Amino acid sequence: MTDTATGGGRRGITAAAVPGLVERAREGDPRSVGRLVSLVEDESPLLPELMRVLAPYAGHARIVGLTGSPGVGKSTSTNALIGELRRRGQSVAVLAVDPSSPFSGGALLGDRIRMGDHVLDPGVFIRSMAARGHLGGLAWTTPQALRVLDAAGFDVVLVETVGVGQSEVEVAGQADTTIVLLAPGMGDGIQAAKAGILEIGDLYVVNKSDREGADKVRRDLRSMLGLAERREGAWRPPVLKTTASTGDGVTDVVDALEEHGDWLRESGELQRRRIRRARGEIETLALTALRRRWGSVDSGDRLDELAAAVVSGATDAYTAADELAG
Amino acid sequence: MTDTATGGGRRGITAAAVPGLVERAREGDPRSVGRLVSLVEDESPLLPELMRVLAPYAGHARIVGLTGSPGVGKSTSTNALIGELRRRGQSVAVLAVDPSSPFSGGALLGDRIRMGDHVLDPGVFIRSMAARGHLGGLAWTTPQALRVLDAAGFDVVLVETVGVGQSEVEVAGQADTTIVLLAPGMGDGIQAAKAGILEIGDLYVVNKSDREGADKVRRDLRSMLGLAERREGAWRPPVLKTTASTGDGVTDVVDALEEHGDWLRESGELQRRRIRRARGEIETLALTALRRRWGSVDSGDRLDELAAAVVSGATDAYTAADELAG
Repeated sequence: MTDTATGGGRRGITAAAVPGLVERAREGDPRSVGRLVSLVEDESPLLPELMRVLAPYAGHARIVGLTGSPGVGKSTSTNALIGELRRRGQSVAVLAVDPSSPFSGGALLGDRIRMGDHVLDPGVFIRSMAARGHLGGLAWTTPQALRVLDAAGFDVVLVETVGVGQSEVEVAGQADTTIVLLAPGMGDGIQAAKAGILEIGDLYVVNKSDREGADKVRRDLRSMLGLAERREGAWRPPVLKTTASTGDGVTDVVDALEEHGDWLRESGELQRRRIRRARGEIETLALTALRRRWGSVDSGDRLDELAAAVVSGATDAYTAADELAG
Repeated sequence: MTDTATGGGRRGITAAAVPGLVERAREGDPRSVGRLVSLVEDESPLLPELMRVLAPYAGHARIVGLTGSPGVGKSTSTNALIGELRRRGQSVAVLAVDPSSPFSGGALLGDRIRMGDHVLDPGVFIRSMAARGHLGGLAWTTPQALRVLDAAGFDVVLVETVGVGQSEVEVAGQADTTIVLLAPGMGDGIQAAKAGILEIGDLYVVNKSDREGADKVRRDLRSMLGLAERREGAWRPPVLKTTASTGDGVTDVVDALEEHGDWLRESGELQRRRIRRARGEIETLALTALRRRWGSVDSGDRLDELAAAVVSGATDAYTAADELAG
């Protein structure tokens, strides 16, 4: 599949070095974990090799998504959640995905600030990732970065993204449990309906609940969620409240996370979600590989020949597509 | 490829009837043209057969895209352009694509109103199309509807869409020449830069040029366009002005259309654009066919088996994708 000659880009990693890196990552070396995430972020040609080595270690971590508009307190909430999970003996990796940034320049400094109380805790790993990828951004890189953190042995992997455009829906699709964060005074009630976040949340948390309007946001959200029809035995998303800056309400959130985890396993939904995710991942990789095989625009290739035949009227697009798809 | 049993959906057309319909459409029967466009809009299983029959008649029409924000006067401009093209002896088909509408209900009434002065003119065909398609909307149906109108023998096919989101870029991608319509008093200067319309226009037309601010819009636009680097021999998009309601300036627009047409042919850009479009069309059809072959979500299929193997750690997503893509 790969050879050492393809190299690891600017990180200078070879295919032969991958198993060793994975081993050190699994032993808890944060630098090795970071280098593996960088391979994903860089869309390294070593990824097939990396994913092959990681496969046997898949499926241990609980993947928790956290999304919300700018200003609702995502970083503070993440910090508070880490604290509570650590008190319960869980190790935690955080992947902060920035859908708007074409590069993660300065991420290191940002990550250190975000670490907050956890900078010296070996049971916590925090990493930002930019969606720079030319292969399709978030949808392409996030699942693979999550596989790295899962295989590295963390009990909980928190994937955090700002709720802008499609990114929150994409990230929710990658998580076992998705937490949607809101805050009073941001017109979130209306935003909620608009952005379709009513469909993606397993848990809703109204943060900054010491502020005016928090109860109204909760009430509005509950009534909107109440309108959705749910099957018998379906999960009914709770609407919780926190003040992440003081830690108020955070134990309730982690309790709800655990309840949802139990429900996922008992209902069979965990397996269904993971299969759906793997389907999406396989399909994306297969389509990317096919596109590449068919040729790149402006180079003389099979697709160009077929396109010329369609333009001249010698064939039609369906017949050409059949030839291409085999 | 198709058999009569697959049927033509609610239109009740069989594969055997397709060549006859195409023949009548080419003889100028507007009802037959309309039925063929409906096959595209309905994503009929007869499309492969239809495209096969149309192939030999491809490439005659000049495809002109017309886009602009709501309120700039697209319908009035279309009407005025039709009038001028007719005076020059050209037959014209108009495809009005509505990217926001899930269905074209009421399109017939709308189309008759839009026909304006041309309702009795056999050299004019006007049709709305909704982007309802589950297969990918605009990008999937528009090229095929344009093939119908091209093959039906119209000299000019005008594809008109409201400039919202990605739709204008998609429609521009389908045209030989794209006209971007603006109007004063709509903050279009800023909108222009934002929406990336500076990259898609071959002709810019400031409509409602009798209103205050029209000259400023032209100036701003010219200076923004002037900033773009262009290769030697490249087309420099003119910025024209019209008052479509009175017809002022419309002859200049059609003159510029013809100039751009000459440039397209002489520079080889026409062939390049058409090949690029055919590439996109073939690729979209091939990927759709492959997705369908790989299986639909929630049905037991090959992709499900591979996904289950990835979830269990028996394989990884790349190896699974390789198997899928063959």
